[in-house]
Amino acid sequence: MRSMIPDYLDGALSDVVADDSGATAAYIPELAAADPDRLGAAFATIDGQVYGAGDVEVEFTIQSISKPFAYALALSDRGFGPVLAKVGVEPSGEAFNEISLEDETGRPLNPMINAGAMTTHSLTGPDGADPARRVERVIDGLSAFAGRRLRVDEATCASEMEHAHRNLAIAHMLRSHEILTEDPRGVVDGYLRQCSVLVTARDLAMMAATLANRGVNPLSGRRVVGERVVRQVLSVMATCGMYDAAGDWATQVGIPAKSGVAGGLIGALPGQLGIATFSPRLDGHGNSVRGVSLFERFTSDMGLHLMEVPPAARAVVRSNRARGSAGDAVRVLRLQGGIRFAGAERFVREVIDSPPAEPRVVVDVSEVYSIDDVSRRMLLELVRRLTLDGHDVYLVDPEAVVPDPDPGEGGRVTVVDDIDEVPVVRGEAGARDVALAGRADDA
Amino acid sequence: MRSMIPDYLDGALSDVVADDSGATAAYIPELAAADPDRLGAAFATIDGQVYGAGDVEVEFTIQSISKPFAYALALSDRGFGPVLAKVGVEPSGEAFNEISLEDETGRPLNPMINAGAMTTHSLTGPDGADPARRVERVIDGLSAFAGRRLRVDEATCASEMEHAHRNLAIAHMLRSHEILTEDPRGVVDGYLRQCSVLVTARDLAMMAATLANRGVNPLSGRRVVGERVVRQVLSVMATCGMYDAAGDWATQVGIPAKSGVAGGLIGALPGQLGIATFSPRLDGHGNSVRGVSLFERFTSDMGLHLMEVPPAARAVVRSNRARGSAGDAVRVLRLQGGIRFAGAERFVREVIDSPPAEPRVVVDVSEVYSIDDVSRRMLLELVRRLTLDGHDVYLVDPEAVVPDPDPGEGGRVTVVDDIDEVPVVRGEAGARDVALAGRADDA
Amino acid sequence: MRSMIPDYLDGALSDVVADDSGATAAYIPELAAADPDRLGAAFATIDGQVYGAGDVEVEFTIQSISKPFAYALALSDRGFGPVLAKVGVEPSGEAFNEISLEDETGRPLNPMINAGAMTTHSLTGPDGADPARRVERVIDGLSAFAGRRLRVDEATCASEMEHAHRNLAIAHMLRSHEILTEDPRGVVDGYLRQCSVLVTARDLAMMAATLANRGVNPLSGRRVVGERVVRQVLSVMATCGMYDAAGDWATQVGIPAKSGVAGGLIGALPGQLGIATFSPRLDGHGNSVRGVSLFERFTSDMGLHLMEVPPAARAVVRSNRARGSAGDAVRVLRLQGGIRFAGAERFVREVIDSPPAEPRVVVDVSEVYSIDDVSRRMLLELVRRLTLDGHDVYLVDPEAVVPDPDPGEGGRVTVVDDIDEVPVVRGEAGARDVALAGRADDA
Amino acid sequence: MRSMIPDYLDGALSDVVADDSGATAAYIPELAAADPDRLGAAFATIDGQVYGAGDVEVEFTIQSISKPFAYALALSDRGFGPVLAKVGVEPSGEAFNEISLEDETGRPLNPMINAGAMTTHSLTGPDGADPARRVERVIDGLSAFAGRRLRVDEATCASEMEHAHRNLAIAHMLRSHEILTEDPRGVVDGYLRQCSVLVTARDLAMMAATLANRGVNPLSGRRVVGERVVRQVLSVMATCGMYDAAGDWATQVGIPAKSGVAGGLIGALPGQLGIATFSPRLDGHGNSVRGVSLFERFTSDMGLHLMEVPPAARAVVRSNRARGSAGDAVRVLRLQGGIRFAGAERFVREVIDSPPAEPRVVVDVSEVYSIDDVSRRMLLELVRRLTLDGHDVYLVDPEAVVPDPDPGEGGRVTVVDDIDEVPVVRGEAGARDVALAGRADDA
Repeated sequence: MRSMIPDYLDGALSDVVADDSGATAAYIPELAAADPDRLGAAFATIDGQVYGAGDVEVEFTIQSISKPFAYALALSDRGFGPVLAKVGVEPSGEAFNEISLEDETGRPLNPMINAGAMTTHSLTGPDGADPARRVERVIDGLSAFAGRRLRVDEATCASEMEHAHRNLAIAHMLRSHEILTEDPRGVVDGYLRQCSVLVTARDLAMMAATLANRGVNPLSGRRVVGERVVRQVLSVMATCGMYDAAGDWATQVGIPAKSGVAGGLIGALPGQLGIATFSPRLDGHGNSVRGVSLFERFTSDMGLHLMEVPPAARAVVRSNRARGSAGDAVRVLRLQGGIRFAGAERFVREVIDSPPAEPRVVVDVSEVYSIDDVSRRMLLELVRRLTLDGHDVYLVDPEAVVPDPDPGEGGRVTVVDDIDEVPVVRGEAGARDVALAGRADDA
Repeated sequence: MRSMIPDYLDGALSDVVADDSGATAAYIPELAAADPDRLGAAFATIDGQVYGAGDVEVEFTIQSISKPFAYALALSDRGFGPVLAKVGVEPSGEAFNEISLEDETGRPLNPMINAGAMTTHSLTGPDGADPARRVERVIDGLSAFAGRRLRVDEATCASEMEHAHRNLAIAHMLRSHEILTEDPRGVVDGYLRQCSVLVTARDLAMMAATLANRGVNPLSGRRVVGERVVRQVLSVMATCGMYDAAGDWATQVGIPAKSGVAGGLIGALPGQLGIATFSPRLDGHGNSVRGVSLFERFTSDMGLHLMEVPPAARAVVRSNRARGSAGDAVRVLRLQGGIRFAGAERFVREVIDSPPAEPRVVVDVSEVYSIDDVSRRMLLELVRRLTLDGHDVYLVDPEAVVPDPDPGEGGRVTVVDDIDEVPVVRGEAGARDVALAGRADDA
Repeated sequence: MRSMIPDYLDGALSDVVADDSGATAAYIPELAAADPDRLGAAFATIDGQVYGAGDVEVEFTIQSISKPFAYALALSDRGFGPVLAKVGVEPSGEAFNEISLEDETGRPLNPMINAGAMTTHSLTGPDGADPARRVERVIDGLSAFAGRRLRVDEATCASEMEHAHRNLAIAHMLRSHEILTEDPRGVVDGYLRQCSVLVTARDLAMMAATLANRGVNPLSGRRVVGERVVRQVLSVMATCGMYDAAGDWATQVGIPAKSGVAGGLIGALPGQLGIATFSPRLDGHGNSVRGVSLFERFTSDMGLHLMEVPPAARAVVRSNRARGSAGDAVRVLRLQGGIRFAGAERFVREVIDSPPAEPRVVVDVSEVYSIDDVSRRMLLELVRRLTLDGHDVYLVDPEAVVPDPDPGEGGRVTVVDDIDEVPVVRGEAGARDVALAGRADDA
Repeated sequence: MRSMIPDYLDGALSDVVADDSGATAAYIPELAAADPDRLGAAFATIDGQVYGAGDVEVEFTIQSISKPFAYALALSDRGFGPVLAKVGVEPSGEAFNEISLEDETGRPLNPMINAGAMTTHSLTGPDGADPARRVERVIDGLSAFAGRRLRVDEATCASEMEHAHRNLAIAHMLRSHEILTEDPRGVVDGYLRQCSVLVTARDLAMMAATLANRGVNPLSGRRVVGERVVRQVLSVMATCGMYDAAGDWATQVGIPAKSGVAGGLIGALPGQLGIATFSPRLDGHGNSVRGVSLFERFTSDMGLHLMEVPPAARAVVRSNRARGSAGDAVRVLRLQGGIRFAGAERFVREVIDSPPAEPRVVVDVSEVYSIDDVSRRMLLELVRRLTLDGHDVYLVDPEAVVPDPDPGEGGRVTVVDDIDEVPVVRGEAGARDVALAGRADDA
């Protein structure tokens, strides 16, 4: 049997293939000469599965899609302070090659426009690295995002350098504001090498999936950049990634995205997947015509819009039951699923609203697959308050999803691997044992 | 026992109370005379629980916070086409009172700046409604979002009208472009009444929670606007809600938000909660100084940032087990949790990668609390393909979480309420019966 | 015999009449319905002679051509300080209906754009005048420039008011910046009445001639505004009169000018003449197509360009001769023409370079028709220095072209009506004849 | 005896010397290290007399003052078409180092901003000249304007090149728009050599005087550029020479001018004189503080403002008298002074209004020192019409101020050197004396 996802992708490509509007980028022969009929799309899940259709193995230059990744590298290599001091995060409402510098400081408005991207390139690698080493660092970094060794298309790179007047203009302007502090030509050269890295739609989907997967490449398992960096990069892609069409994209597609002039387009959906399309004909904003159509289709068909409100997790509290009686009575609260603030709040509320009468309280998180920090703290604070109210509290946590379970001053909790380890429960009715036995089977 | 959430809010207020920087809005006496020391914060969950601390019952004027809600009403009353034809969705990178119209058309760039907000106001209610009825419609709508009857502060409204020169200028400019097609004074007057609606921080939290809850007021259960409208409104809040500080907010706070000049500030976290703060001293952007601090604190403490990638739902497939043997063999796949594309993909992949050898396949969704449309379709397509491969397929769905379970041409599925209804399984080991019995208890 | 100037004008009109490009202004019916084929041109000299050809007696509305005259009235009525505090003098490089206000202050960039013109209108008449009286003042003032009583076209005015959304927008914006301090509607109404004043091409030529004639109407002899005001108005017309085509006009035509949307166009050439044309079809800048052609022709045919360097007045010193001998010797310096700095300098230089040996020095200005203030001062200072060097100095000035001939401390001069009144010269009848006969030698 | 002009200049310098506000340019050490107390001023008349006070022999770099002169050279070397195709003439309202390019074409708005000045530099010399030869051409040209061989300050030039990031940025931007079509670095280098030419205030005054003298250096008598070029250059100086203070300068000073960052400032008053000042401390616009004060003083003291309307030449017609009687009767019209359109018009009008009854008409221009082309044509047309009316016409023109005196078809004129050569008049000796004695009556 075959998965319907490739079929879906095939169908999507079929639906857009007839649209031959737009044109390949014309400013250098290498791009102008690209086969305009190429068409491909790929999904990469955050556990590394890749689905593709069409030309997903054809190499083309990454161009501006390198910008968010180089930004991630710069943030990672130099830290937030030095990078934010030189490149802002505000949407410019302008085309990619506008200068868009802040009035007084000359700081580029964001890292997605060329001025910001060149500055970002100059901030990759260790401070003081020479241009060649810096390029090496960037190619290494992009390769790490992709999960395979990438290389530069030297012909495109040489041609770009010949037509780099506008970028040289911008770089000299940045130098005049001391946003760049070195020879602008070296920065432009390095930046154009970065843009000339060859990728396939498959590579791009994997690079996007690395962002969607909190910075860890799903295939290699290697952490490329930290989570805080990923959050910053995705935020900037969401507001500045599509240049002067940012608002249209945000409302209609709603996925942090980035396009490149060679026809690539990526989207990264946090916690879910990376998407890439490839089709070289561009619209007036410089975005791939069929790529934009595909993304609109994907978001509509698949409910990927960031503001598509998911149904609430109503069932965080799987069960809330009393067992035993009198002095032996135990209150057992079983939680499940992934717990974030909204879920933790409901759990806490349930306990507050119906305070346990039983002397012992068991919080069973063995079916919780994740709990974020605020929820962990709320849970532990609840434990502390239960202790202060005179309860003995047990935490069933066989996989240690609640790290460092210290409820703080006045609180106390006994962590056990199995509910059977809670004293009295052990002797209880077999129903629970059976239940537990059943549960173990299910896991 | 007391919930720790009010304690948390109290603590947060304590931490910011000392910051008396900024100043109340000075352009009308009513705002200038506001008590600058007021401070309050409220959370409203999407099932209607409100937590508050400080001045959450003090009334103040809603001001620009009315903008996203009026935008929602206009989209709802007139449809997307007519509204988008007159108001864009692009960030302006400019302050709230900039004119920011598109060059040729005079279309305001977005509904969060005054030009866009006045145009939006003019698009509420039925086409052709007189100004007074339109105002009534807006107040009704805001009241529906809040879940209680709101009223206008007539003194503030009168004072606003006296100082409305800039808004009148903008409205006349819109009239000259035929974006407005009626007397501009009536629109300005109605818009200022909209801005003069009195709310409390509690109201605002509930209004934001209505957005977070897909347009349904958590308390009244009444649908105020549709889901597509909510998605549009939240998208625009995310990119345009904080004016010229949009990028800073998007990276540092990451919650769709809107501020008002009387000191209110709201944030709506899709599927989770609504947040509101109230503190009248404003910073240079016109945002509440302590409100911004509180939101930064909330997002950091509580992991609310939109791009904070949640841990993946690894356990969508709760179990995948064979039962019985030979001709009686059944493959039982039990799903759990909320299923969106990424989860559905994993389930599908599991089936594809390990195709069931058994003639009968049971897909048990009784522990699934939600499934979105794409996942439903993937599930049904999988069913169809299983049928085509010769399997008999059963769907255990007692709560009908999979609506309209038609697998399409060539597919066939038997929907049952309980796994016991699947023929052969019935005779199986009692363990399962017990498990099921236990499960029912847990629900 | 007939003057060739009307013939010239007729010929010029014939040459442009075939050009029917452009279109009448379309924003109100009264202008749209104007006969587009009307064509007229008029010259008015600074002593009141008017030459006309074509439709010079047809009335049309003055529109923006009222702006420089109202600016003159405001400067005259309120003084430079209060007017410059509210309206700047910088070219905006923008179209007439752009708002073009200074960032912080809201001050309109110049009085030729609508924002500046409305502010200027509000500054005419005495401070505190009501709108109706102010309009009366402006119509009186425009009439004084034209030399006949002008009146308002009520139909056009009413129609303008109906389509005044953009002007109302601008006026409210000015009110919000407190550049206007009264009800904006009253200012717009008054301004539109000002624009609706009916004039003919003959009127406009006379109005321009009044500016060219230092503010005195050539026909009535009445001073309408002061010379300093005229200098300011002409300067602003030169840099801001033609909106976004200011540089083209300055280089190609080089005459301070102003156009109106009803088809009028004026130019004022300081000290020479006023020019007006009338042809209702407008180009993309809002200037009369055939009017612009006519002005280009006039400046080229007639050498009217401000930067057309006139041949220098080489013969300021008409003769420099000694008469008599020994103790009776007299040095006679005869000046001629109009004397400005450059001429005075040459005279002074001649005396310095060849200091008179004679005890008496006669400066004869009886053939000088004008002398400006700096030249007067230089002449008197020369007299003073001659006195200090021991000379007796006589000034022959029968028409008192050198007012207040006081050479200052240590200087002394005897003013006489005729050279014969200089003591010793008296007896020398005939010598003068010789001198005159010898004029060719002096040259 | 000493001229009062140097005294005046000394006095003017004394009045401003105390003002030590502003600061020397800081962007390169050579300028920063300039002696800020230097102060000088010079006037150069159009016949080559130079008056100076203070530091008029101190050399400094010409900087932006080279711009109008290089523009003149480009217009002269390449013609108007090619230069206007690449550099506009519109005021930018922006500072000197703004990019200020037209949106679509990338054409710099005017030649006084750096973008326009570098483009202008690239258009000097013959098309295709190499950068070094072009620089030689520019230095030759500037030297011709100054009347002495100028040289480059190599130290300043080298330092400028090190700090040329912004100019390099602009030049690369121009290259990207193909406004420049060669290596931008060569253009910037050449432009900076142009700016590094050493001049004194005396040189600058002479350069300005060359413009004021229609393009002929007053000392060398050599024509540097043509009159049409001078008109264009002065027009652009008038509207764009003082950057964002253009309107203030136009109204308050009213002299076409240009400033340089080393402290120089020039003004050229067509037909009168060139002015230069030198004082290195600059104001916020980059103009010399004391230089601006001096020019304000000069224009006010000396009536140099372009819009300062001079008293009209009322006496163009010196006398209009009949002589002889009956068949011998002659009408003698004596003209005087410099005749431009306004004067010619008065003469023509006098003849038209009082048509001569005498068969012979004598037009005596022996006391006319100049007549422009339009006036010449009007005079000859009058002659033609007089002929057609049956008159014999004589022109007394001993110095041939009326070139090519052909009255055209049907006209006839006899040119004589002296009125005595007119047949009948010859016998009337003495009549002329009477006429002269009666001159006062004619006025």
